[in-house]
Amino acid sequence: MNFPSKLIEDAVNEFAKLPGIGKKTALRLVMHLLKADVPTVKHFGETISRMRTDIKFCSTCHNLSDHDQCQVCLDPRRDKQLICVVSDFKDVIAVENTGQYKGTYHVLGGVISPIDGIGPDQLQIESLCKRVREDETKEVIMALDPTMEGDTTVFYVSKKLKDTKVRVTTLARGVSFGGELEYVDELTLARSIATRLPYENYLGKK
Amino acid sequence: MNFPSKLIEDAVNEFAKLPGIGKKTALRLVMHLLKADVPTVKHFGETISRMRTDIKFCSTCHNLSDHDQCQVCLDPRRDKQLICVVSDFKDVIAVENTGQYKGTYHVLGGVISPIDGIGPDQLQIESLCKRVREDETKEVIMALDPTMEGDTTVFYVSKKLKDTKVRVTTLARGVSFGGELEYVDELTLARSIATRLPYENYLGKK
Repeated sequence: MNFPSKLIEDAVNEFAKLPGIGKKTALRLVMHLLKADVPTVKHFGETISRMRTDIKFCSTCHNLSDHDQCQVCLDPRRDKQLICVVSDFKDVIAVENTGQYKGTYHVLGGVISPIDGIGPDQLQIESLCKRVREDETKEVIMALDPTMEGDTTVFYVSKKLKDTKVRVTTLARGVSFGGELEYVDELTLARSIATRLPYENYLGKK
Repeated sequence: MNFPSKLIEDAVNEFAKLPGIGKKTALRLVMHLLKADVPTVKHFGETISRMRTDIKFCSTCHNLSDHDQCQVCLDPRRDKQLICVVSDFKDVIAVENTGQYKGTYHVLGGVISPIDGIGPDQLQIESLCKRVREDETKEVIMALDPTMEGDTTVFYVSKKLKDTKVRVTTLARGVSFGGELEYVDELTLARSIATRLPYENYLGKK
Protein backbone atom coordinates (compact mmCIF):
# COMPACT_ATOMS: atom_id res chain seq x y z
CA MET A 1 0.00 0.00 0.00
CA ASN A 2 1.28 3.48 -0.82
CA PHE A 3 0.92 6.10 1.88
CA PRO A 4 1.08 9.85 1.30
CA SER A 5 3.03 10.33 4.51
CA LYS A 6 5.50 8.50 6.73
CA LEU A 7 3.49 9.56 9.81
CA ILE A 8 0.40 7.82 8.47
CA GLU A 9 2.36 4.78 7.42
CA ASP A 10 3.84 4.47 10.93
CA ALA A 11 0.42 4.83 12.55
CA VAL A 12 -1.10 2.22 10.22
CA ASN A 13 1.75 -0.18 10.97
CA GLU A 14 1.29 0.29 14.71
CA PHE A 15 -2.44 -0.48 14.51
CA ALA A 16 -1.80 -3.42 12.20
CA LYS A 17 0.38 -5.04 14.90
CA LEU A 18 -2.70 -5.50 17.10
CA PRO A 19 -4.45 -8.88 16.92
CA GLY A 20 -7.26 -9.14 14.38
CA ILE A 21 -6.41 -5.82 12.73
CA GLY A 22 -5.01 -5.88 9.20
CA LYS A 23 -3.64 -3.07 7.08
CA LYS A 24 -7.03 -2.07 5.65
CA THR A 25 -8.72 -1.87 9.03
CA ALA A 26 -5.69 -0.06 10.44
CA LEU A 27 -5.98 2.53 7.66
CA ARG A 28 -9.68 2.98 8.43
CA LEU A 29 -8.86 3.61 12.11
CA VAL A 30 -6.13 6.10 11.18
CA MET A 31 -8.54 7.91 8.82
CA HIS A 32 -11.02 8.15 11.65
CA LEU A 33 -8.44 9.63 14.00
CA LEU A 34 -7.22 12.06 11.33
CA LYS A 35 -10.72 13.53 11.24
CA ALA A 36 -10.89 13.86 15.02
CA ASP A 37 -9.41 16.98 16.61
CA VAL A 38 -5.87 17.09 18.02
CA PRO A 39 -6.67 16.91 21.78
CA THR A 40 -8.92 13.85 21.25
CA VAL A 41 -6.19 11.94 19.46
CA LYS A 42 -3.56 13.05 21.98
CA HIS A 43 -5.81 11.82 24.76
CA PHE A 44 -6.21 8.49 22.96
CA GLY A 45 -2.46 7.98 22.65
CA GLU A 46 -1.76 9.07 26.21
CA THR A 47 -4.47 6.85 27.72
CA ILE A 48 -3.04 3.78 26.01
CA SER A 49 0.55 4.57 27.04
CA ARG A 50 -0.45 5.41 30.60
CA MET A 51 -2.44 2.19 30.93
CA ARG A 52 0.74 0.20 30.33
CA THR A 53 3.20 2.36 32.29
CA ASP A 54 1.08 3.01 35.40
CA ILE A 55 -0.50 -0.41 35.84
CA LYS A 56 0.47 -2.22 39.03
CA PHE A 57 -0.09 -5.68 40.45
CA CYS A 58 -2.01 -6.12 43.67
CA SER A 59 0.45 -7.18 46.38
CA THR A 60 -2.08 -9.66 47.81
CA CYS A 61 -3.77 -11.36 44.86
CA HIS A 62 -1.47 -10.29 41.94
CA ASN A 63 -4.42 -9.04 39.94
CA LEU A 64 -3.95 -5.90 37.81
CA SER A 65 -4.59 -2.80 39.85
CA ASP A 66 -4.23 0.99 39.89
CA HIS A 67 -2.73 0.91 43.38
CA ASP A 68 -0.73 -1.42 45.63
CA GLN A 69 -3.88 -3.32 46.49
CA CYS A 70 -6.73 -4.00 44.10
CA GLN A 71 -10.35 -2.95 44.56
CA VAL A 72 -11.45 -6.48 45.42
CA CYS A 73 -8.84 -6.95 48.17
CA LEU A 74 -9.62 -3.50 49.61
CA ASP A 75 -13.40 -4.06 49.62
CA PRO A 76 -14.49 -4.88 53.23
CA ARG A 77 -17.65 -6.64 51.96
CA ARG A 78 -15.60 -9.30 50.19
CA ASP A 79 -15.17 -12.62 51.99
CA LYS A 80 -11.43 -12.93 52.66
CA GLN A 81 -11.90 -16.59 53.72
CA LEU A 82 -12.80 -17.58 50.16
CA ILE A 83 -10.18 -17.42 47.38
CA CYS A 84 -10.89 -18.05 43.72
CA VAL A 85 -7.65 -19.12 42.01
CA VAL A 86 -7.41 -18.16 38.32
CA SER A 87 -4.57 -18.29 35.83
CA ASP A 88 -5.00 -14.85 34.29
CA PHE A 89 -6.52 -11.42 35.01
CA LYS A 90 -8.95 -12.02 32.11
CA ASP A 91 -10.53 -14.76 34.20
CA VAL A 92 -11.03 -12.31 37.09
CA ILE A 93 -13.04 -10.11 34.72
CA ALA A 94 -15.04 -13.14 33.58
CA VAL A 95 -15.91 -14.19 37.15
CA GLU A 96 -16.62 -10.60 38.23
CA ASN A 97 -19.02 -10.22 35.30
CA THR A 98 -21.21 -12.97 36.75
CA GLY A 99 -21.92 -10.61 39.67
CA GLN A 100 -22.37 -13.70 41.88
CA TYR A 101 -18.97 -14.17 43.48
CA LYS A 102 -18.33 -12.40 46.78
CA GLY A 103 -14.91 -13.80 47.74
CA THR A 104 -11.41 -12.68 46.73
CA TYR A 105 -9.07 -13.82 43.96
CA HIS A 106 -5.56 -15.11 43.46
CA VAL A 107 -4.00 -14.71 40.02
CA LEU A 108 -1.35 -17.38 39.37
CA GLY A 109 -0.05 -15.74 36.20
CA GLY A 110 -0.39 -18.94 34.16
CA VAL A 111 -0.55 -22.70 34.68
CA ILE A 112 2.19 -25.31 35.09
CA SER A 113 3.32 -26.19 31.58
CA PRO A 114 6.69 -27.97 31.26
CA ILE A 115 6.46 -27.80 27.46
CA ASP A 116 6.46 -23.97 27.64
CA GLY A 117 9.08 -24.02 30.40
CA ILE A 118 6.64 -22.82 33.07
CA GLY A 119 7.22 -24.52 36.41
CA PRO A 120 5.54 -23.93 39.80
CA ASP A 121 8.27 -21.44 40.77
CA GLN A 122 7.29 -19.00 38.03
CA LEU A 123 3.70 -18.92 39.25
CA GLN A 124 2.25 -17.25 42.34
CA ILE A 125 1.70 -20.59 44.12
CA GLU A 126 4.03 -19.93 47.08
CA SER A 127 2.25 -16.65 47.86
CA LEU A 128 -1.11 -18.46 47.64
CA CYS A 129 0.01 -21.03 50.22
CA LYS A 130 1.29 -18.22 52.46
CA ARG A 131 -2.06 -16.41 52.18
CA VAL A 132 -4.01 -19.56 52.99
CA ARG A 133 -1.89 -20.22 56.08
CA GLU A 134 -1.82 -16.65 57.39
CA ASP A 135 -5.50 -15.82 56.81
CA GLU A 136 -6.75 -19.31 57.74
CA THR A 137 -8.69 -19.43 54.50
CA LYS A 138 -11.72 -21.76 54.54
CA GLU A 139 -12.02 -22.54 50.82
CA VAL A 140 -9.92 -22.29 47.68
CA ILE A 141 -11.88 -22.54 44.41
CA MET A 142 -9.60 -23.66 41.58
CA ALA A 143 -11.08 -21.91 38.53
CA LEU A 144 -8.53 -22.98 35.91
CA ASP A 145 -9.11 -24.07 32.31
CA PRO A 146 -9.99 -27.79 31.97
CA THR A 147 -6.76 -28.62 30.12
CA MET A 148 -3.97 -30.98 31.03
CA GLU A 149 -1.90 -28.03 32.28
CA GLY A 150 -4.82 -26.69 34.30
CA ASP A 151 -5.49 -30.08 35.89
CA THR A 152 -1.78 -30.50 36.71
CA THR A 153 -1.79 -27.13 38.45
CA VAL A 154 -4.91 -27.99 40.46
CA PHE A 155 -3.26 -31.25 41.53
CA TYR A 156 -0.02 -29.48 42.51
CA VAL A 157 -1.77 -26.73 44.49
CA SER A 158 -4.08 -29.18 46.30
CA LYS A 159 -1.05 -31.25 47.34
CA LYS A 160 0.76 -28.13 48.58
CA LEU A 161 -2.27 -27.21 50.68
CA LYS A 162 -2.80 -30.71 52.11
CA ASP A 163 -1.34 -29.84 55.52
CA THR A 164 -3.77 -26.91 56.00
CA LYS A 165 -7.45 -27.17 56.87
CA VAL A 166 -8.53 -25.42 53.65
CA ARG A 167 -11.17 -27.05 51.43
CA VAL A 168 -10.03 -27.17 47.79
CA THR A 169 -12.88 -27.17 45.25
CA THR A 170 -13.06 -26.92 41.46
CA LEU A 171 -15.67 -25.43 39.17
CA ALA A 172 -18.56 -27.74 38.26
CA ARG A 173 -18.16 -29.16 34.77
CA GLY A 174 -21.14 -30.27 32.74
CA VAL A 175 -23.67 -29.35 30.10
CA SER A 176 -23.95 -25.56 29.95
CA PHE A 177 -27.27 -23.84 30.64
CA GLY A 178 -29.04 -23.27 27.33
CA GLY A 179 -26.90 -25.94 25.71
CA GLU A 180 -28.66 -28.60 23.65
CA LEU A 181 -27.70 -32.18 24.47
CA GLU A 182 -27.40 -32.96 20.76
CA TYR A 183 -24.45 -30.57 20.40
CA VAL A 184 -22.61 -31.30 23.66
CA ASP A 185 -19.24 -33.05 23.20
CA GLU A 186 -19.05 -36.69 24.30
CA LEU A 187 -16.58 -36.16 27.16
CA THR A 188 -18.62 -33.41 28.80
CA LEU A 189 -21.85 -35.41 28.45
CA ALA A 190 -20.27 -38.60 29.79
CA ARG A 191 -18.73 -36.74 32.74
CA SER A 192 -21.96 -34.89 33.50
CA ILE A 193 -23.78 -38.26 33.72
CA ALA A 194 -21.04 -39.70 35.96
CA THR A 195 -21.07 -36.64 38.27
CA ARG A 196 -24.88 -36.22 38.24
CA LEU A 197 -26.46 -34.31 41.12
CA PRO A 198 -29.54 -34.97 43.25
CA TYR A 199 -32.34 -32.75 41.92
CA GLU A 200 -32.48 -30.66 45.11
CA ASN A 201 -28.87 -29.55 44.44
CA TYR A 202 -29.64 -28.67 40.81
CA LEU A 203 -29.34 -24.90 41.10
CA GLY A 204 -26.90 -24.55 43.97
CA LYS A 205 -24.61 -26.67 46.10
CA LYS A 206 -25.41 -26.84 49.79
CA MET B 1 -18.37 -5.03 32.19
CA ASN B 2 -16.36 -4.90 35.42
CA PHE B 3 -12.74 -3.81 35.13
CA PRO B 4 -10.10 -4.44 37.77
CA SER B 5 -8.60 -1.02 37.16
CA LYS B 6 -9.62 2.48 36.03
CA LEU B 7 -6.57 2.61 33.74
CA ILE B 8 -7.77 -0.45 31.84
CA GLU B 9 -11.33 0.81 31.73
CA ASP B 10 -10.16 4.12 30.22
CA ALA B 11 -8.03 2.34 27.64
CA VAL B 12 -10.90 0.02 26.68
CA ASN B 13 -13.25 2.98 26.32
CA GLU B 14 -10.76 4.82 24.10
CA PHE B 15 -10.40 1.81 21.77
CA ALA B 16 -14.17 1.27 21.76
CA LYS B 17 -14.64 4.79 20.33
CA LEU B 18 -12.96 3.70 17.10
CA PRO B 19 -15.24 2.58 14.25
CA GLY B 20 -16.00 -1.14 14.15
CA ILE B 21 -14.49 -1.82 17.58
CA GLY B 22 -16.81 -2.81 20.40
CA LYS B 23 -16.08 -3.30 24.09
CA LYS B 24 -15.08 -6.96 23.73
CA THR B 25 -12.63 -6.30 20.89
CA ALA B 26 -11.30 -3.25 22.76
CA LEU B 27 -10.63 -5.43 25.81
CA ARG B 28 -8.80 -7.95 23.64
CA LEU B 29 -6.58 -5.19 22.22
CA VAL B 30 -5.87 -3.85 25.72
CA MET B 31 -4.98 -7.38 26.93
CA HIS B 32 -2.58 -7.69 24.03
CA LEU B 33 -0.89 -4.37 24.88
CA LEU B 34 -0.71 -5.28 28.58
CA LYS B 35 1.42 -8.25 27.61
CA ALA B 36 3.75 -6.16 25.45
CA ASP B 37 6.63 -4.37 27.15
CA VAL B 38 6.42 -0.74 28.24
CA PRO B 39 8.52 0.90 25.45
CA THR B 40 6.45 -0.87 22.76
CA VAL B 41 3.18 0.43 24.15
CA LYS B 42 4.63 3.92 24.70
CA HIS B 43 5.79 3.92 21.09
CA PHE B 44 2.30 2.87 19.99
CA GLY B 45 0.64 5.73 21.87
CA GLU B 46 3.20 8.29 20.74
CA THR B 47 3.04 7.26 17.09
CA ILE B 48 -0.74 7.72 17.03
CA SER B 49 -0.58 11.12 18.79
CA ARG B 50 2.27 12.35 16.60
CA MET B 51 0.46 11.28 13.44
CA ARG B 52 -2.37 13.67 14.28
CA THR B 53 -0.31 16.58 15.69
CA ASP B 54 2.49 16.65 13.10
CA ILE B 55 0.50 16.00 9.95
CA LYS B 56 0.50 18.83 7.41
CA PHE B 57 -1.31 19.58 4.18
CA CYS B 58 0.63 19.93 0.95
CA SER B 59 0.55 23.61 -0.06
CA THR B 60 0.10 22.66 -3.73
CA CYS B 61 -2.36 19.74 -3.83
CA HIS B 62 -3.74 19.80 -0.23
CA ASN B 63 -3.00 16.12 0.22
CA LEU B 64 -1.80 14.96 3.63
CA SER B 65 1.94 15.31 3.94
CA ASP B 66 4.85 15.22 6.37
CA HIS B 67 6.24 18.47 4.99
CA ASP B 68 5.04 21.63 3.23
CA GLN B 69 4.90 19.77 -0.05
CA CYS B 70 3.89 16.15 -0.49
CA GLN B 71 6.02 13.39 -2.00
CA VAL B 72 3.99 13.35 -5.21
CA CYS B 73 4.33 17.12 -5.83
CA LEU B 74 8.08 16.97 -5.04
CA ASP B 75 8.72 13.97 -7.33
CA PRO B 76 10.33 15.27 -10.56
CA ARG B 77 9.16 12.18 -12.48
CA ARG B 78 5.50 13.09 -11.95
CA ASP B 79 3.73 14.82 -14.83
CA LYS B 80 2.78 18.26 -13.48
CA GLN B 81 0.59 18.88 -16.55
CA LEU B 82 -1.86 16.21 -15.45
CA ILE B 83 -3.98 16.68 -12.32
CA CYS B 84 -6.26 14.05 -10.83
CA VAL B 85 -8.95 15.79 -8.76
CA VAL B 86 -10.24 13.74 -5.82
CA SER B 87 -12.51 14.58 -2.91
CA ASP B 88 -10.48 12.98 -0.15
CA PHE B 89 -6.95 11.79 0.69
CA LYS B 90 -8.30 8.22 0.83
CA ASP B 91 -8.90 8.48 -2.90
CA VAL B 92 -5.26 9.48 -3.45
CA ILE B 93 -4.20 6.26 -1.74
CA ALA B 94 -6.67 4.29 -3.89
CA VAL B 95 -5.32 5.79 -7.15
CA GLU B 96 -1.69 5.46 -6.00
CA ASN B 97 -2.28 1.77 -5.25
CA THR B 98 -3.07 1.15 -8.92
CA GLY B 99 0.59 2.01 -9.65
CA GLN B 100 -0.54 3.27 -13.07
CA TYR B 101 -1.02 6.98 -12.56
CA LYS B 102 1.99 9.24 -13.19
CA GLY B 103 0.43 12.70 -12.83
CA THR B 104 -0.23 14.82 -9.73
CA TYR B 105 -3.29 15.21 -7.51
CA HIS B 106 -5.57 17.89 -6.15
CA VAL B 107 -7.57 17.10 -3.03
CA LEU B 108 -10.77 19.15 -2.88
CA GLY B 109 -11.54 18.20 0.72
CA GLY B 110 -15.08 17.06 -0.13
CA VAL B 111 -17.75 17.64 -2.78
CA ILE B 112 -20.37 20.37 -3.19
CA SER B 113 -23.29 19.33 -0.99
CA PRO B 114 -25.80 22.07 -0.13
CA ILE B 115 -27.68 19.68 2.17
CA ASP B 116 -24.54 19.36 4.37
CA GLY B 117 -23.82 23.09 4.03
CA ILE B 118 -20.75 22.54 1.86
CA GLY B 119 -20.45 25.14 -0.91
CA PRO B 120 -17.68 25.66 -3.47
CA ASP B 121 -15.95 28.17 -1.16
CA GLN B 122 -15.25 25.50 1.47
CA LEU B 123 -13.49 23.31 -1.09
CA GLN B 124 -10.08 23.76 -2.72
CA ILE B 125 -11.62 24.71 -6.08
CA GLU B 126 -10.18 28.23 -6.29
CA SER B 127 -6.65 26.91 -5.71
CA LEU B 128 -7.24 24.25 -8.39
CA CYS B 129 -8.21 26.94 -10.94
CA LYS B 130 -5.13 28.96 -9.94
CA ARG B 131 -2.90 25.91 -10.41
CA VAL B 132 -4.40 25.13 -13.81
CA ARG B 133 -3.88 28.72 -14.99
CA GLU B 134 -0.35 29.13 -13.60
CA ASP B 135 1.02 25.75 -14.66
CA GLU B 136 -0.87 25.69 -17.97
CA THR B 137 -2.15 22.21 -17.07
CA LYS B 138 -3.12 20.07 -20.06
CA GLU B 139 -5.66 17.75 -18.43
CA VAL B 140 -7.75 17.59 -15.29
CA ILE B 141 -9.16 14.13 -14.46
CA MET B 142 -12.22 14.45 -12.23
CA ALA B 143 -12.06 11.28 -10.09
CA LEU B 144 -15.05 11.96 -7.84
CA ASP B 145 -17.69 9.51 -6.60
CA PRO B 146 -20.58 9.01 -9.07
CA THR B 147 -23.13 10.64 -6.78
CA MET B 148 -25.33 13.68 -7.31
CA GLU B 149 -22.89 15.76 -5.23
CA GLY B 150 -19.90 14.41 -7.16
CA ASP B 151 -21.54 15.17 -10.51
CA THR B 152 -22.48 18.67 -9.33
CA THR B 153 -18.87 19.31 -8.36
CA VAL B 154 -17.58 18.05 -11.72
CA PHE B 155 -20.06 20.34 -13.47
CA TYR B 156 -19.05 23.34 -11.32
CA VAL B 157 -15.30 22.79 -11.79
CA SER B 158 -15.60 22.24 -15.55
CA LYS B 159 -17.55 25.51 -15.85
CA LYS B 160 -14.92 27.35 -13.80
CA LEU B 161 -12.18 26.04 -16.10
CA LYS B 162 -14.04 26.82 -19.35
CA ASP B 163 -11.92 29.89 -20.13
CA THR B 164 -8.69 27.88 -19.91
CA LYS B 165 -7.35 25.45 -22.50
CA VAL B 166 -7.40 22.51 -20.06
CA ARG B 167 -9.12 19.29 -21.06
CA VAL B 168 -11.53 18.09 -18.33
CA THR B 169 -12.09 14.33 -18.26
CA THR B 170 -13.87 11.94 -15.90
CA LEU B 171 -13.20 8.33 -14.97
CA ALA B 172 -14.71 5.72 -17.29
CA ARG B 173 -17.86 4.20 -15.83
CA GLY B 174 -19.01 0.74 -16.77
CA VAL B 175 -18.97 -2.93 -15.94
CA SER B 176 -15.95 -3.67 -13.74
CA PHE B 177 -13.29 -6.16 -14.85
CA GLY B 178 -14.16 -9.54 -13.41
CA GLY B 179 -17.77 -8.45 -12.89
CA GLU B 180 -20.49 -10.77 -14.13
CA LEU B 181 -23.16 -9.14 -16.27
CA GLU B 182 -25.87 -10.94 -14.32
CA TYR B 183 -25.00 -9.02 -11.14
CA VAL B 184 -24.32 -5.57 -12.60
CA ASP B 185 -26.88 -2.93 -11.62
CA GLU B 186 -29.24 -1.74 -14.38
CA LEU B 187 -27.97 1.86 -14.52
CA THR B 188 -24.33 0.83 -14.94
CA LEU B 189 -25.20 -1.75 -17.59
CA ALA B 190 -27.47 0.65 -19.49
CA ARG B 191 -24.81 3.40 -19.38
CA SER B 192 -22.05 1.03 -20.43
CA ILE B 193 -24.09 0.07 -23.50
CA ALA B 194 -24.78 3.73 -24.30
CA THR B 195 -21.10 4.70 -23.91
CA ARG B 196 -19.73 1.58 -25.61
CA LEU B 197 -16.22 1.73 -27.06
CA PRO B 198 -14.73 0.55 -30.36
CA TYR B 199 -12.90 -2.72 -29.67
CA GLU B 200 -9.48 -1.20 -30.45
CA ASN B 201 -9.98 1.19 -27.49
CA TYR B 202 -11.01 -1.63 -25.15
CA LEU B 203 -7.92 -1.66 -22.94
CA GLY B 204 -6.77 1.94 -23.19
CA LYS B 205 -7.93 5.25 -24.55
CA LYS B 206 -5.81 6.80 -27.29
